[in-house]
Amino acid sequence: MLSKNTIFAILLIFVPISIAGSLLHWSGTVVFITACLAIIPLAAYMGEATEAIAVVVGPNIGGLMNATFGNATELILAYVALREGFIDVVKATITGSIIGNLLLVMGLSMFLGGLRFKEQEFQPITARLNASAMNLAVVALLLPTAVQFTSTGVGEAVLQRLSVAVAAVLIFVYGLSLLFSMKTHTYLYDVGVAGIEEESARESTAKPKIWFWSLILLIVTIAVAVESELLVASLEEATEQLGLTALFTGVILLPIIGNAAEHATAVTVALKNKMDLSVSVAVGSSMQIALFVAPVLVIMGYIIGQPMDLNFNPFELVAVAVAVWLANSISSDGRSNWLEGMLLLATYAILALAFFFHPLTA
Amino acid sequence: MLSKNTIFAILLIFVPISIAGSLLHWSGTVVFITACLAIIPLAAYMGEATEAIAVVVGPNIGGLMNATFGNATELILAYVALREGFIDVVKATITGSIIGNLLLVMGLSMFLGGLRFKEQEFQPITARLNASAMNLAVVALLLPTAVQFTSTGVGEAVLQRLSVAVAAVLIFVYGLSLLFSMKTHTYLYDVGVAGIEEESARESTAKPKIWFWSLILLIVTIAVAVESELLVASLEEATEQLGLTALFTGVILLPIIGNAAEHATAVTVALKNKMDLSVSVAVGSSMQIALFVAPVLVIMGYIIGQPMDLNFNPFELVAVAVAVWLANSISSDGRSNWLEGMLLLATYAILALAFFFHPLTA
Amino acid sequence: MLSKNTIFAILLIFVPISIAGSLLHWSGTVVFITACLAIIPLAAYMGEATEAIAVVVGPNIGGLMNATFGNATELILAYVALREGFIDVVKATITGSIIGNLLLVMGLSMFLGGLRFKEQEFQPITARLNASAMNLAVVALLLPTAVQFTSTGVGEAVLQRLSVAVAAVLIFVYGLSLLFSMKTHTYLYDVGVAGIEEESARESTAKPKIWFWSLILLIVTIAVAVESELLVASLEEATEQLGLTALFTGVILLPIIGNAAEHATAVTVALKNKMDLSVSVAVGSSMQIALFVAPVLVIMGYIIGQPMDLNFNPFELVAVAVAVWLANSISSDGRSNWLEGMLLLATYAILALAFFFHPLTA
Repeated sequence: MLSKNTIFAILLIFVPISIAGSLLHWSGTVVFITACLAIIPLAAYMGEATEAIAVVVGPNIGGLMNATFGNATELILAYVALREGFIDVVKATITGSIIGNLLLVMGLSMFLGGLRFKEQEFQPITARLNASAMNLAVVALLLPTAVQFTSTGVGEAVLQRLSVAVAAVLIFVYGLSLLFSMKTHTYLYDVGVAGIEEESARESTAKPKIWFWSLILLIVTIAVAVESELLVASLEEATEQLGLTALFTGVILLPIIGNAAEHATAVTVALKNKMDLSVSVAVGSSMQIALFVAPVLVIMGYIIGQPMDLNFNPFELVAVAVAVWLANSISSDGRSNWLEGMLLLATYAILALAFFFHPLTA
Repeated sequence: MLSKNTIFAILLIFVPISIAGSLLHWSGTVVFITACLAIIPLAAYMGEATEAIAVVVGPNIGGLMNATFGNATELILAYVALREGFIDVVKATITGSIIGNLLLVMGLSMFLGGLRFKEQEFQPITARLNASAMNLAVVALLLPTAVQFTSTGVGEAVLQRLSVAVAAVLIFVYGLSLLFSMKTHTYLYDVGVAGIEEESARESTAKPKIWFWSLILLIVTIAVAVESELLVASLEEATEQLGLTALFTGVILLPIIGNAAEHATAVTVALKNKMDLSVSVAVGSSMQIALFVAPVLVIMGYIIGQPMDLNFNPFELVAVAVAVWLANSISSDGRSNWLEGMLLLATYAILALAFFFHPLTA
Repeated sequence: MLSKNTIFAILLIFVPISIAGSLLHWSGTVVFITACLAIIPLAAYMGEATEAIAVVVGPNIGGLMNATFGNATELILAYVALREGFIDVVKATITGSIIGNLLLVMGLSMFLGGLRFKEQEFQPITARLNASAMNLAVVALLLPTAVQFTSTGVGEAVLQRLSVAVAAVLIFVYGLSLLFSMKTHTYLYDVGVAGIEEESARESTAKPKIWFWSLILLIVTIAVAVESELLVASLEEATEQLGLTALFTGVILLPIIGNAAEHATAVTVALKNKMDLSVSVAVGSSMQIALFVAPVLVIMGYIIGQPMDLNFNPFELVAVAVAVWLANSISSDGRSNWLEGMLLLATYAILALAFFFHPLTA
């Protein structure tokens, strides 16, 4: 079987292919698919480079870097889409990332891990704290939708102001949660961090210097931007040709691409019976989307004049609530087995079916 | 006090009465009520016969039989109603069975058990796993409703296709859950199975042979079909005369009749302080409805040309969500007392009131 | 820093000021604000007097008194508002009290307590039982709304009948829960009661006689009625001048005033690391609102001819569900820290923002 790193190296070939395709005016669908494939390894290298630099600059600045740049791919991709006015796709990507992390990533980890080990255990305290923080974030993200859905008509200006205010509260809470995990209650997170460092150490036997990783980070960041432009530019033509709605693309397709690296990590460590780390990658990643990426996009949109409110499709509200509820119900006892993983996967499949058949265009 | 078996034997007299009533063209209400009363003991005998045969044929085929035929009464009754086009009644019966098992059966067990014992304990691991499986099933059953409710109009054909796809996923998960409980993780279910066998052993001192039970099963199955026909044929006239809506009949009345035997078992074992078994009958039964009976009916309906989608009345969605939420909240700590039982019963009473006053006809 | 008692004594000066303001026809806003400030110490003295008498008359009648008169301020205020026809404000006050106790009071306690102690623990059994009872109550209160929202039109008479029936079930359950905590399962509540008595003992070195407290209770009750009249009479003018909607006033402002004394108690004991007592004050208080105050108001309204149904604004339904969900998720593990407190406070802030921007007038 090919290792994770070999697969990523092979996928890199799609970077030049997609750029060539765009210059030669190939069909939008081809450019779209090759750009998607090209982003997967770039996202992985970006995460690796960030982590390598973080280790060198020390736990405080490093932790902050990790927390801020950990979702850089999603942020860049969403920013480009936002600039081009694909506001509904961006919103769908946010809900899709939350659902994907909680159901697809955690489900795959528990299922594959559970096939190898009869029962797997993880520390439920941090999982629960993360879950509570995520509950807050989900509630916050979805309240503007609820205001809209339960009233006879709120002006767009009001929704926009409410969304910015909510975003500000979320970024404030995100800052506090970093303070909590890196200053006042670090001991609760020891397992997770130790696990991540151990994993990194295992993967790279000899660490290159910081200037090497900074260079890599720079190059990869530029490549991701470039590829995001190609992807967004071909988005409309491709989804139309493939017969997909913008909602389905945003909720299901894009998040799988943006989070492929995290998926691989979570499953790999689950297969090594480190469920603590696996669950914390899945829950922590969806928490970062909700507490950091989404509010930053709202404020960015406000600044660049593409006002993105937090008024989601009510069905997205239902889907996120369902995902959070099931993930809580399955992870709250600190044990997992293959059936629990399969339940999460089945929920994901059913939600994907529902999004596929949902008639709204976003 | 009369024993359970005596009561069932007495109720058998309503089998000939209801048939006679139908042949003599008595009032629909009388036929309806006598058919209802006749089905109660038949369902009990069907369960007993299935279990007796299951013990003889061994744990594997036996477990499968139990899991498949355990809800045969509900299936037959629902099939007949479906064939006659009472689709809304069938859908209401599904939600009603889930609500009834979680609130009425579990509530009565905890309340009556709690009056005799100050505090009762049960193993929360299997309860939680069942609860998670049921959460998935409930989510799956209700998603088509959410799709319909949150969009401006989904074609009936789309809803039907979505419903069949969801049903297929659910039956697949049901199969996996049988594999889990009967092959890979049997040890988690030891208490429950041992309890059921012990109960059976206690009730029947000398076990008759398998041909005897097969004959009983055959006769009882035919009788249930016959009585279901009578019940469904008189349904419309009876509910009209009694001033009940089809929604109330489907959600409250029919599930009580179809599940009377399980109710009796759950309460009986609760009074013997075997809460493990009692909770697992209640939760397991609602899980079977959601993961097996409902999807089979969707697919059956599709085959016999009475297409039953999973688009429920939104209020049924609220009611099921409420029932699952409260049952989880009360059972998750593995202890119960009379007040907790009463809380479940009060919720059931309030839901019944709401369904009674709900103006929709289904 | 001024002690709680000194602050209350100072606030008493607003009793004569508000009365004078009303007689001299000052602006409605001034009368409203001074009446609000006057009610805060009155509510505190009412609670203290009730408790002092309860200690003298013994645990049974005393407990009943505490449970019945503990929310006397809210009841009087709501009764006056109901009589004057401010039905939507009264309903908003009910949801606001529940949200405020679960998010603001519990949040402040956990946050401030968490700043002083790294981790605080509390007994989760009673917390969970209270939470289950509250879940039932919340479900019951919100079902009529759900019936209305999911149907094409229910007559006002039907909603009113459903509401009265639901209220009767809730008062019945409230009676049973008193029986449970004061008769059959007192031992579960020992910590809490002991804590309250200890607190009371610490605060007052020499206890005055019962006639003294009865006199105080009488005077304070009259003063609260009087001040409630002033507050309600100036409500409309004041909210208009301040630019607030009736919904915001009812959900956010009034509950903070009515519950100020409980807020102070919960925070004070949290700072003494008695989280058991702190959490039980917050959860218990919202439980009393839902199981006792709200149904009594429904029945009172029915009697005085100002029929108050339980058909809330659907957004209130969302807000209460969110508050209960988050409070459960944070309190269910029996531990707290400052971040968890901050999560509850942030949720409260976001809900307050949403109510502020919500366009419905109630």
